[in-house]
Amino acid sequence: MQAEIITIGDEILIGQIVDTNSAFIGKEFNKFGISVYQITSIQDDKSHILQALKEAEANADIIIITGGLGPTKDDITKHTICEYFNDTLVEDKSVLANVEQIFSKWSSAPLLDVNKQQALVPSKASVLMNHNGTAPGMWLEKNGKVFVSLPGVPYEMKALITDQVIPKLRQQFHFPYILHKTILTYGKGESALAEDIFKWEEALPSFIKLAYLPSLGRVRLRLSGKSQDRKKLEEEIQKQVDLLLPQIEDIFVGFEEDKSIEAILGERLAQLGKTLSVAESCTGGKIASSFTENAGASRYFKGSVVTYATETKVDVLGVSQEMINKHSVVSKEVAEAMAKGVQKLYNTDYAISTTGNAGPEKGDSDAEVGTVWIAIATKDKVFSDVFNFGTLREKVIGRATSKAFEMLFKEI
Amino acid sequence: MQAEIITIGDEILIGQIVDTNSAFIGKEFNKFGISVYQITSIQDDKSHILQALKEAEANADIIIITGGLGPTKDDITKHTICEYFNDTLVEDKSVLANVEQIFSKWSSAPLLDVNKQQALVPSKASVLMNHNGTAPGMWLEKNGKVFVSLPGVPYEMKALITDQVIPKLRQQFHFPYILHKTILTYGKGESALAEDIFKWEEALPSFIKLAYLPSLGRVRLRLSGKSQDRKKLEEEIQKQVDLLLPQIEDIFVGFEEDKSIEAILGERLAQLGKTLSVAESCTGGKIASSFTENAGASRYFKGSVVTYATETKVDVLGVSQEMINKHSVVSKEVAEAMAKGVQKLYNTDYAISTTGNAGPEKGDSDAEVGTVWIAIATKDKVFSDVFNFGTLREKVIGRATSKAFEMLFKEI
Repeated sequence: MQAEIITIGDEILIGQIVDTNSAFIGKEFNKFGISVYQITSIQDDKSHILQALKEAEANADIIIITGGLGPTKDDITKHTICEYFNDTLVEDKSVLANVEQIFSKWSSAPLLDVNKQQALVPSKASVLMNHNGTAPGMWLEKNGKVFVSLPGVPYEMKALITDQVIPKLRQQFHFPYILHKTILTYGKGESALAEDIFKWEEALPSFIKLAYLPSLGRVRLRLSGKSQDRKKLEEEIQKQVDLLLPQIEDIFVGFEEDKSIEAILGERLAQLGKTLSVAESCTGGKIASSFTENAGASRYFKGSVVTYATETKVDVLGVSQEMINKHSVVSKEVAEAMAKGVQKLYNTDYAISTTGNAGPEKGDSDAEVGTVWIAIATKDKVFSDVFNFGTLREKVIGRATSKAFEMLFKEI
Repeated sequence: MQAEIITIGDEILIGQIVDTNSAFIGKEFNKFGISVYQITSIQDDKSHILQALKEAEANADIIIITGGLGPTKDDITKHTICEYFNDTLVEDKSVLANVEQIFSKWSSAPLLDVNKQQALVPSKASVLMNHNGTAPGMWLEKNGKVFVSLPGVPYEMKALITDQVIPKLRQQFHFPYILHKTILTYGKGESALAEDIFKWEEALPSFIKLAYLPSLGRVRLRLSGKSQDRKKLEEEIQKQVDLLLPQIEDIFVGFEEDKSIEAILGERLAQLGKTLSVAESCTGGKIASSFTENAGASRYFKGSVVTYATETKVDVLGVSQEMINKHSVVSKEVAEAMAKGVQKLYNTDYAISTTGNAGPEKGDSDAEVGTVWIAIATKDKVFSDVFNFGTLREKVIGRATSKAFEMLFKEI
């Protein structure tokens, strides 16, 4: 069973926003056996929307349309869908009630006519009530194909996909058994890893597919199989995993598909009853915010400091000015003193620190742009390492953050 | 002149990665008059790639292909491009030298055969040298159309687009004069704003297009015009802006297109010679990292603390335990004490603090999930406000961060 996702909005094509919706839908659909055949992003333009709908109908069984449902004039999706289905808009009382309720509860703005127009839906559509916003989801069918139009606001779209679209699809269609096993590795590049496991990969049975999913510092190996014989598929994937693991022992982190290494780290710390604090200079709060993005961070994360200006390393973390003068602010000594300083300040079992130069210009140190010292403090030791993460600021911050997670992970 | 972007990779369709490349390309192209007609994301599948190339060639003058150039087996783009152009792969010595240099400089891994294969390019292609990675960009032409294949790694792709693709396109084609004016507003929703400026919008001349670009807490209004008569277009857009500004005085932030409010705030602080510190609880480092993502943050940003655990608000920021007991940790009093505490700790002109509950569960306070107190300290006062940002963790953190910027912005 195949789906196509059509995302509508000039703002996507002119690059004002990044389309994160498609990735979410692709991931959720994949879990239960719907492959996304294509993602197509197009402008708020009637003829182009009509053409995209037609092409998608030819290629896919399920067509998900996101965006273009807002109240302002540059959104024309709803009218175009009406034209495609040879339908007219009618006011839906339940949607109108939802719009009114949302305005009375969350908004200090008055309810305007443009907002009330959100209650207009094609007469042939089943409404998917949007509890997080005013634009409803709409489910339509044509020639055995399902068309679902959803608002483009990510958290509204997500709730509608999870709570309404997927349950309705599962009810309506029969899905084959699909199994994914994702293996998270850290600290080795894609091609070196591919070379290591080349023979194993060659010998995979044809109904199991392997994908390399690299991102900063890590590679996910994803085995996917689809079959009517659930038991055989499970056994075969397990067998392949058992063959693989001894070959990647030193870089294996876990089997988590969706979880980041910092989420896994956090859970491990919480399980062990251990606590963490962070002192950041060049990463500027990125390490702390990566941990605290995950629910439940308060179980292990006690706090952090960003000591961006050099003197704050002295004032807040108690790093000695003499040490900074002698070794420079980007040095092994300062990194380790920062880790120990923050560990003491927040009284934690573990601490991470970073000090470096993210660029684009040199700062309070002679260190080359991209040079970063990362230190880890545990209850009985402190150690550190130095890296050069290149000259692009965004990349230096990202790679330093990722490497800090990797260093702490190896320690726990 | 129209472009189509084709992004290739199973990892996009299964949602393992978000396609940020297309937004970048769309934005850069738009600036000098290339409209992106469509973005199409497809799998690493030969027949689908061939079909997408054919359709794109029919619709667009410039076809940008990203992704699918990595060294591992699931990348088949290069071979498929060869087939489309009826071409063969040949080894390019300059690319091989680049691959060898990158390995000797950045990698501790040995240079493998799969890496050397990156030097194979279609014989008809002009190589766009990738100084940040091993996969080269490739420029091909067919029937007057330009095809450019680029690696999918964002910073490699970005450098190639900026330094090589755009200059080469400008050299080869004549572009009409295009002008955008983006007006950043803060603190009013899309539909209320649209209602406010309805008459002005109705009266816009037909060659000027208006788009609403809403994101958390802010709406960008984007006027776009395309013309051969540069002077007339500039005058008309300026005239429209002059008519608009008095109507949006209270929410107008600036004319910056690409800059975030925190980048604008940072520049203003630096110009004024003022400094900032931040104390975060529920936002967990997000405010600090948003400021420090921007180059030059060290001119005004001195540091921050994340006091995630309640006791750290006492230990690190000097908030009194008595106050916390009396008012709870999510309260006006604690927010303001945190702001004053961090302002003193880092000795800054301004300070921001947040304390709240980002969910999904209640923390060390009885406050409802989504409740956030935000305080701003200046040299002579401290003030705060309370908000409820809903029940979704990601949204609470995002909206609280955005609102904090807005509150500080109004003060400076």
